[in-house]
Amino acid sequence: MKAKKFIIKKHFEGLPKKSDLELVEEELPPLQDGDVLYEAIFLSVDPYMRLVATRLPLGSTMIGSQVAKVIESKHPAYKVGDNVVAELGWRSRTVVNPDDVSSPYGGKAKPHVLPNFGDIPLSTALGVLGMPGNTAWFGLTKLCEPKSGETLVVTGAAGAVGSLVGQIGKILGLKVIGFAGTDEKVKILKEELNFDHAFNYKTCDVTESLKIAAPHGVDIYFDNVGGTISSIIMTSMNTFGRVAVCGSISAYNADPKNLPLAPLMQPTIIFKQLKIEGFIVTRWLNIWMEGIHKNLEFMKQGKLKVKETILKGFEQMDDAFIGLFLGENIGKAVIEV
Amino acid sequence: MKAKKFIIKKHFEGLPKKSDLELVEEELPPLQDGDVLYEAIFLSVDPYMRLVATRLPLGSTMIGSQVAKVIESKHPAYKVGDNVVAELGWRSRTVVNPDDVSSPYGGKAKPHVLPNFGDIPLSTALGVLGMPGNTAWFGLTKLCEPKSGETLVVTGAAGAVGSLVGQIGKILGLKVIGFAGTDEKVKILKEELNFDHAFNYKTCDVTESLKIAAPHGVDIYFDNVGGTISSIIMTSMNTFGRVAVCGSISAYNADPKNLPLAPLMQPTIIFKQLKIEGFIVTRWLNIWMEGIHKNLEFMKQGKLKVKETILKGFEQMDDAFIGLFLGENIGKAVIEV
Repeated sequence: MKAKKFIIKKHFEGLPKKSDLELVEEELPPLQDGDVLYEAIFLSVDPYMRLVATRLPLGSTMIGSQVAKVIESKHPAYKVGDNVVAELGWRSRTVVNPDDVSSPYGGKAKPHVLPNFGDIPLSTALGVLGMPGNTAWFGLTKLCEPKSGETLVVTGAAGAVGSLVGQIGKILGLKVIGFAGTDEKVKILKEELNFDHAFNYKTCDVTESLKIAAPHGVDIYFDNVGGTISSIIMTSMNTFGRVAVCGSISAYNADPKNLPLAPLMQPTIIFKQLKIEGFIVTRWLNIWMEGIHKNLEFMKQGKLKVKETILKGFEQMDDAFIGLFLGENIGKAVIEV
Repeated sequence: MKAKKFIIKKHFEGLPKKSDLELVEEELPPLQDGDVLYEAIFLSVDPYMRLVATRLPLGSTMIGSQVAKVIESKHPAYKVGDNVVAELGWRSRTVVNPDDVSSPYGGKAKPHVLPNFGDIPLSTALGVLGMPGNTAWFGLTKLCEPKSGETLVVTGAAGAVGSLVGQIGKILGLKVIGFAGTDEKVKILKEELNFDHAFNYKTCDVTESLKIAAPHGVDIYFDNVGGTISSIIMTSMNTFGRVAVCGSISAYNADPKNLPLAPLMQPTIIFKQLKIEGFIVTRWLNIWMEGIHKNLEFMKQGKLKVKETILKGFEQMDDAFIGLFLGENIGKAVIEV
């Protein structure tokens, strides 16, 4: 059986280019005992892939998770017709022993059989009911000590994680202020996603916007972007403010040996006595389902609206990926095969 | 009775200059009921004064703490001959109602009567047995979760706080690496203060030095300086490393509206999952004596050696203060009247 995959042809330098990746066909081997044949239904593109890919040898398949259907199985834990979420990389079909699948962060990552999703689209297993949803839930609740009435700022607010962080913040009783990169995104944040305030960081003065939107100061900052805007937002924070550092998309295309510069944060960190914590969501693998159940409950209650940008066609993966860095997606970017 | 004081003549711009301060004489008023006349014995100069002073109106007396003797008292809590540590500013003699003395960080700061120090010099009430000592003890033990066998890096390692942090780290079983700004300081750190490694950051390659001194990575970073060296040290940290941000002397002379730039920290913060916390030691006022007693115990056991740079003469305060930013002091800088 034939399959398609994207391999790394050239290590990314600056903004990823289509020529850095190559779409290749391969003939899949017959299944050995223990193997499963998976067929991708939805594939995820996420900014972190930019960073992980630079550490992989040329010729490697791009890493990433997908929702896939079991087509054939010689493994007792997987039945034909099961849907799984799995770290299979950018592959349209995969033959693998599921016990051997590894996580891009190290360690094993056995494909996870999904329960019946009913009316909920399977793509959400890559978004609100998957890694980005748990990133939002755990990052906000475990690291930021949110207390009703406090003020939360989110950057990358219209992205896969940011759009959920802001809505969860509202559910927890916070005042929520979002920064995003287009007027269209700002409109959606305010009109559809219940943000109290939203601003286009490309056209507003961040300090002045926060004076108006957060006259009593910012208590929590959920940082998806890093860089100068983060230094500025921190100067608007209250004493004992908390910062969760989730993403740094402003630096993902930079040379890691020669990172861009930003205004010093230490004077602000000291005088506001800020607590800043960086995290990778897999630190909460042992309580993973807590996040999934919480976000599912909020969805069912109509309190958490899910935005997705779905591109059709496996061959579009590179475009969808590059689009992340051009700010093209609203909510979770997903490829439907 | 005559007294001398330093007032702010011009707000500091860049490195403090002697012409920014003015030494003036004043005639002290007679004591009212509740007043005390204090005579300074030792006065403190500390880097934080650079920042606080810029927020005070011109003509204000420079802020700071001193060890003083009670010369005359119309307050029941203070007897003639008592020694106190008090936030009286840069004054040789002061007439004040002690109930009205305020802290440079806000709130009241009633002068604290010192017990009999025996053989221990009274100047230590401004250093190891005062604010810098508690900054070292609480900052390291409350924020950095030190565990025996871990590796600690300290910048400003020969300063009032850094020289204590490193020694307390050794007492707690850490491997201790210090960065300081002269070869003389480096020698003292290694030969007198029991640091495992010490480097002159002006002449060494920080990354390469840490590869040698911390082959298993850095677990804790106690940051007294901020800026580029801090960004570099963080890249040598282990997953779940802890950073206490205590000082940012590299930026104290900068224009706060136009801070110097440093390489982005967010990518490192995320991928190492670092926890970074800024602090001002007064957050532990409610358990203040715990730190004093701990450091006193370590001194008596001979485990904590105290370095002081003492200048004689009240008139030298401005020079001693400017010297802080030129790296002239080793250990606590104190003026003896």
